[in-house]
Amino acid sequence: MSNLTAVDLLPMSPFAKKIYALTKDFVENECIPAEHIYQDQLGKGPDRFKWVPPILADLKKKARALGLWNLFLTEEYGPLSPGLTTMEYAVICELLGRSSLAPPATNCAAPDTGNMELLAKFGNEEQKKKWLKPLMEGEIRSTFAMTEPGVASSDATNISTSITPTADGKHYIINGHKHWQSNFSHPDTKVLLLVGKTRSDGPRHGMLSVIILPKDTPGVEFVRHMTVYGYDHAPSGHDELKFNDCKVPKENLILGEGRGFEILQGRLGGGRIHHAMRTLGVGQRALELMLLECVNEKKKPFGVLKGDQGKIQWDIAQSRIQLEQCKQLVYMAAKAMDVKGLKEARFEIAMAKVAVPYQVCEIIDRAMQVYGGLGVSQSTELAHMWAMIRHLRFADGPDEAHAAQLARAELKNTANIRKTYDEYKRKELELRKTVKSLL
Amino acid sequence: MSNLTAVDLLPMSPFAKKIYALTKDFVENECIPAEHIYQDQLGKGPDRFKWVPPILADLKKKARALGLWNLFLTEEYGPLSPGLTTMEYAVICELLGRSSLAPPATNCAAPDTGNMELLAKFGNEEQKKKWLKPLMEGEIRSTFAMTEPGVASSDATNISTSITPTADGKHYIINGHKHWQSNFSHPDTKVLLLVGKTRSDGPRHGMLSVIILPKDTPGVEFVRHMTVYGYDHAPSGHDELKFNDCKVPKENLILGEGRGFEILQGRLGGGRIHHAMRTLGVGQRALELMLLECVNEKKKPFGVLKGDQGKIQWDIAQSRIQLEQCKQLVYMAAKAMDVKGLKEARFEIAMAKVAVPYQVCEIIDRAMQVYGGLGVSQSTELAHMWAMIRHLRFADGPDEAHAAQLARAELKNTANIRKTYDEYKRKELELRKTVKSLL
Amino acid sequence: MSNLTAVDLLPMSPFAKKIYALTKDFVENECIPAEHIYQDQLGKGPDRFKWVPPILADLKKKARALGLWNLFLTEEYGPLSPGLTTMEYAVICELLGRSSLAPPATNCAAPDTGNMELLAKFGNEEQKKKWLKPLMEGEIRSTFAMTEPGVASSDATNISTSITPTADGKHYIINGHKHWQSNFSHPDTKVLLLVGKTRSDGPRHGMLSVIILPKDTPGVEFVRHMTVYGYDHAPSGHDELKFNDCKVPKENLILGEGRGFEILQGRLGGGRIHHAMRTLGVGQRALELMLLECVNEKKKPFGVLKGDQGKIQWDIAQSRIQLEQCKQLVYMAAKAMDVKGLKEARFEIAMAKVAVPYQVCEIIDRAMQVYGGLGVSQSTELAHMWAMIRHLRFADGPDEAHAAQLARAELKNTANIRKTYDEYKRKELELRKTVKSLL
Amino acid sequence: MSNLTAVDLLPMSPFAKKIYALTKDFVENECIPAEHIYQDQLGKGPDRFKWVPPILADLKKKARALGLWNLFLTEEYGPLSPGLTTMEYAVICELLGRSSLAPPATNCAAPDTGNMELLAKFGNEEQKKKWLKPLMEGEIRSTFAMTEPGVASSDATNISTSITPTADGKHYIINGHKHWQSNFSHPDTKVLLLVGKTRSDGPRHGMLSVIILPKDTPGVEFVRHMTVYGYDHAPSGHDELKFNDCKVPKENLILGEGRGFEILQGRLGGGRIHHAMRTLGVGQRALELMLLECVNEKKKPFGVLKGDQGKIQWDIAQSRIQLEQCKQLVYMAAKAMDVKGLKEARFEIAMAKVAVPYQVCEIIDRAMQVYGGLGVSQSTELAHMWAMIRHLRFADGPDEAHAAQLARAELKNTANIRKTYDEYKRKELELRKTVKSLL
Repeated sequence: MSNLTAVDLLPMSPFAKKIYALTKDFVENECIPAEHIYQDQLGKGPDRFKWVPPILADLKKKARALGLWNLFLTEEYGPLSPGLTTMEYAVICELLGRSSLAPPATNCAAPDTGNMELLAKFGNEEQKKKWLKPLMEGEIRSTFAMTEPGVASSDATNISTSITPTADGKHYIINGHKHWQSNFSHPDTKVLLLVGKTRSDGPRHGMLSVIILPKDTPGVEFVRHMTVYGYDHAPSGHDELKFNDCKVPKENLILGEGRGFEILQGRLGGGRIHHAMRTLGVGQRALELMLLECVNEKKKPFGVLKGDQGKIQWDIAQSRIQLEQCKQLVYMAAKAMDVKGLKEARFEIAMAKVAVPYQVCEIIDRAMQVYGGLGVSQSTELAHMWAMIRHLRFADGPDEAHAAQLARAELKNTANIRKTYDEYKRKELELRKTVKSLL
Repeated sequence: MSNLTAVDLLPMSPFAKKIYALTKDFVENECIPAEHIYQDQLGKGPDRFKWVPPILADLKKKARALGLWNLFLTEEYGPLSPGLTTMEYAVICELLGRSSLAPPATNCAAPDTGNMELLAKFGNEEQKKKWLKPLMEGEIRSTFAMTEPGVASSDATNISTSITPTADGKHYIINGHKHWQSNFSHPDTKVLLLVGKTRSDGPRHGMLSVIILPKDTPGVEFVRHMTVYGYDHAPSGHDELKFNDCKVPKENLILGEGRGFEILQGRLGGGRIHHAMRTLGVGQRALELMLLECVNEKKKPFGVLKGDQGKIQWDIAQSRIQLEQCKQLVYMAAKAMDVKGLKEARFEIAMAKVAVPYQVCEIIDRAMQVYGGLGVSQSTELAHMWAMIRHLRFADGPDEAHAAQLARAELKNTANIRKTYDEYKRKELELRKTVKSLL
Repeated sequence: MSNLTAVDLLPMSPFAKKIYALTKDFVENECIPAEHIYQDQLGKGPDRFKWVPPILADLKKKARALGLWNLFLTEEYGPLSPGLTTMEYAVICELLGRSSLAPPATNCAAPDTGNMELLAKFGNEEQKKKWLKPLMEGEIRSTFAMTEPGVASSDATNISTSITPTADGKHYIINGHKHWQSNFSHPDTKVLLLVGKTRSDGPRHGMLSVIILPKDTPGVEFVRHMTVYGYDHAPSGHDELKFNDCKVPKENLILGEGRGFEILQGRLGGGRIHHAMRTLGVGQRALELMLLECVNEKKKPFGVLKGDQGKIQWDIAQSRIQLEQCKQLVYMAAKAMDVKGLKEARFEIAMAKVAVPYQVCEIIDRAMQVYGGLGVSQSTELAHMWAMIRHLRFADGPDEAHAAQLARAELKNTANIRKTYDEYKRKELELRKTVKSLL
Repeated sequence: MSNLTAVDLLPMSPFAKKIYALTKDFVENECIPAEHIYQDQLGKGPDRFKWVPPILADLKKKARALGLWNLFLTEEYGPLSPGLTTMEYAVICELLGRSSLAPPATNCAAPDTGNMELLAKFGNEEQKKKWLKPLMEGEIRSTFAMTEPGVASSDATNISTSITPTADGKHYIINGHKHWQSNFSHPDTKVLLLVGKTRSDGPRHGMLSVIILPKDTPGVEFVRHMTVYGYDHAPSGHDELKFNDCKVPKENLILGEGRGFEILQGRLGGGRIHHAMRTLGVGQRALELMLLECVNEKKKPFGVLKGDQGKIQWDIAQSRIQLEQCKQLVYMAAKAMDVKGLKEARFEIAMAKVAVPYQVCEIIDRAMQVYGGLGVSQSTELAHMWAMIRHLRFADGPDEAHAAQLARAELKNTANIRKTYDEYKRKELELRKTVKSLL
């Protein structure tokens, strides 16, 4: 089937088309073939978080030489940006999503991407120089410390970690308990961007602040690696941490006390759409794996290829349609970001946030069902994909919260619909005066 | 919520933007306010198929004066076309779909649209002059006679109506039994385009032909009106017909004996996407109706607005997301048609064909559930919408057939995927030679 | 496939088994063969509500002679009851649900069943003699007047129809506006049981009363027949009514002023489970119709029986499983009613109320899809079934309301679950003291 | 909410009621409190498969003393059976499913249960003495070696492992490659029941045989532990194995050469229903966990308890309804087995096999969504439950295969339905002669 590729149908600049082609080549010919080697190079047992498989450094070098670097910093970041629009990046990021190695190899991996965006938007020159620069160079990695155990973190005002100024005003002392700090254990990670409360009273949205916490600060305590469906996601991990009187200079505060909520809005919105873009690539690969098993000549229960079973054909078609619908939704949201900006495009982003991981989970699950036991085991990538994508249905806020926000926006807009329908009625009554009904 | 409108985000020509604006105004200010009047002007009881509510003629006059006429004839029809691309028409047709009066008022209603396309593509000059011209002028209407009772008509080779040349070769005699001839009873309908067999042996795809059958030909017998969930869809109807030795001149055959299959491919593909486009407008209105009831201050079970119920907010969000995904899928398919042509875009069309009516049915059904009894009664348009859109899940071929075609195309393409994955493996083995594994 | 029949597996008394066998014979050999004749005997056009097709009287005579009469009055109604338990009636009512003629033929049709239950439970001797007796004899029929337009009637406290005592205390005057009064137009209907407010202040649940309103009372005004999808359901109908100063003697009040809420609880609970029981029979017939088309030798698209398509086999299996799950749920709820009584079994009833119509709608819809056009037209019973069963998803309260009640009951019970889990923890700690861990 | 318990509603013998009460007490007060201790006692890293946590031995001792032992051997096993019917065991096994420790503690764990059934039904006295006895005593454990990599094992005729008689006819030599041998690595496992081919030609169903293969036979080669999602399920595991010229005495063959297919039918049918029974208990616990988080006072996003969100209430209700429907379906299938025997009840079993894991997966997934990150991590049991239950959708044959079998059985039965409907028509025509239609 001659599929449309987005690059043919969407208005991409010549530069974007070039980057697209380079990325495609890099992902297909460099990243995917390196995946099993990366796994083999990973530490085993107690060494799992001790080193980064060296093949990643090779890939990073290649990517950088090709100009495939920090692509997520779209036009709005001015001189920091390689120059893609969000829509163009969406199409390219989908390619990156095809291989778990491609985002880190191109310095486009979460949570660093969001952290770099945060520093680029809200950091001062000193902060940028000290932390953004090495992050953009790929020399260090970082984690984002927001979620806390024992509270409903989808509502940021529940955060209880404290960022308290010292009496002399020269430092902040951080105390708290957090979990799901992805990347914390990564050998290259040097810094945390931490969300906490600089005050515990006053208006809800003025309590939060974001501060830069170097990983080696005394009092930063590793508690445990969180697992996701049994996976530890080494060497990045998702860790539970405690902060015991961690002392950082006041210069580490970003933007100012009480500006945390504003910063979060900026960080999370973009992150959500990046996840959705990458998820498209995962869905694409899941569908490919499904198709390959469907035509596997060795797997013919009762003499019939799996792909010749009508129910499975139905599943293939549903998967293809869902994937295409997800793609188009992401492109649309990305275009909306380009045209209207992040804030105005928040509902389009929410749609992609809710729809894409859910539907790609369905695709992955159908692929698993075709494989049977191999589909849930280490013999395919599917179970790993499931764990990654399933968790996106609550990461950065559960589907339910985004759907409710979306619905409330629709309901708010209903006053306009009411006016329109009242106007229909008014015009109908006017029109009735002019017609001679047959009745 | 400031929704993106397609016209802002898609590359529309200035002409298309103008047509879009005119159409929007016409649908909102002329068509929708006339809907109840149209219903009131319809004949009652035995008169239901006797006349066309006169307000439609007024609307047609206005539409034509505005240049909103035959818009479905896209660029590829050359001088016959007002000049829209398929993608531009998709965006505009979605507006037409908002009112059941807008398509007939703008001469963009099925099955005439498909019939005009058929005559424009495959008719000879004489046929065009005699039938295409008055159809394009909106002077007459037409029906398409393909489906037959008692056989699986989704497979056209099952058609049994015969088109037999007379001994002298000057005429054809038509005998057969068909149903679901939409528009046949319409007072303006003057002609049928009929699919039958000019031979009953030889290659499967060479038996079918399409012929022009004037409605007043002796032997054309009305059997009954088919209902759809209890609706008769007067004055158009969907009729069961018999053909008893109907004699037409040989000049009425289109393109040539045995060319029917080729003609059908052309006619049905375009028709499917038109249905999908209009369905978007229906879905939009269903969602609006849902929202209006959600904020109806008089309908507060246990003191809570329906729109304030969490389950209903979830339904709103799902509906909005599905609608947006359907829109983007239709635009994509339309773009594909513009870029690749109808034939090459058949799988994109199939995706829209399968996905859009199904998902819009879900939207309508959720809206009904919010209304309760009023939702299924004559008090809202929802039940009527349901009947219309539900039948699209099998009209022009059931979902299952299109999904299977799509899946088989994917499976055929899997040979390429296999090659790609073999190449991944080959490159991995090559790469392994160069790395010094830590293990 | 040798299906289990409920009668083989459930503990049915010999009497119930006899009634089951008689009912089966009556439905299969008398009712179903009479269905088309009934349709033919119905009035056409303006006569649709004028008479009852005479074949129904024949069926009633036969049913009564067989003892298949008022079976819904289960044991708890003492001498009024033919003697079935609720569970036994469930199994038998499922048979009645197979034919739309069987419930009225056996005097087991809504809304009369609920009205008879109401009068039997709450009516005084005089009321029973005057109204319950002729209803039980099948001499008259009745309607239940609760739902009102323009308010959220799923919350009975929103009812606004007034029942005002006259100054002399001898009569009540009824004023109000209602709709969905099923049976009102039925030629045999002589009486309405009307829910209204005898006071408009005081405690929410003390305002409602139920009163007997003879149909021929001056001021009872027919407004229009409500349609369901496009069906009018003649000769019963679902009508919109107005009540203009309708005067009835005070003796017509049931149980006493302000007792309406209590009466409603009793009436609606039982009604819901009756609907669910009958729906099982409808689902059974829909599945049979689906299967028949699946093996229809004349309908072989591309040479393959529909039943040989894998996707359709999947649909058949899902339908069979859902039907079986629905059956078992209804039997369980019925058993719960026998064991615990209506009030205590209200959550089991709610489960059946929510699950059964939803799932049987899915079964009907799949059957339609197999038939294509015929499935939605008058050529099969499916569209009619859909209209009937779909409306049950909001009749007697929408799914959403019942689900929320059920969930709140579960949440209330969570305090006990909490205690249990705390106890698990306590025991674990105790146990830990005794084990010598290997670690 | 006062839930019905099955034990109150189903016809259970006094003995079964006693066992039910003892089991409930044992599971609640002994097994569940021991779960975390069991986890802590498990070997870590390279020791994971080295020992069985000693607390299990304590539990086994207690269970046996209470008479909670080998309960799965239902009445049909005569003197070997503790004396429960299948339906009674279903209700009790559901309790066992509440704790992953309860089945092994009561000697009711797969795959031993199926293996014991197999030996009890098909083994000779010597085989029973040597292997069934120690299995029934809980002294040893076992694995079942059927599934093979690289073939579609859901079709047993694809099995390629060879069981070749030696020239002298005194031994068999086994060669082959298998995976998913659950329990193989378990320290107590001493024996494999292996399915292979004693001949590779002749009728499809006469090639398979089952043989007893002691685990310590030379040539039995461990290849690797298969993972399920990221879990290794130590110390039982699911292993990949190779068989290299394994030599066993001819007495180890069960029932005779070529009798394997017959044996498989017996083994798998019962196993499927046991899985379904246990899954009910898993679903029950998942729902409890969901409810607990719903009322967790510390987790109130935006000040609202999760359980007070309408969407989540909807999810709770759906989960409760699905769980109840699954329970009833399993009880029904179990009753059918009691009444009709395993073979005749195979379609009822298939329904439970398809429906229960699917729906319980939905329940688990909803519970996860309520928990967010904790739901997929080691902090709750949910991700582990998901892995266990999700794999049941293809273990012992994928849903698709069972659904297709069920559908084909329905379609075969359609000849009877056809006769019934033809009879309806015949009777209608007869009846028409007697009625004087009004028309």
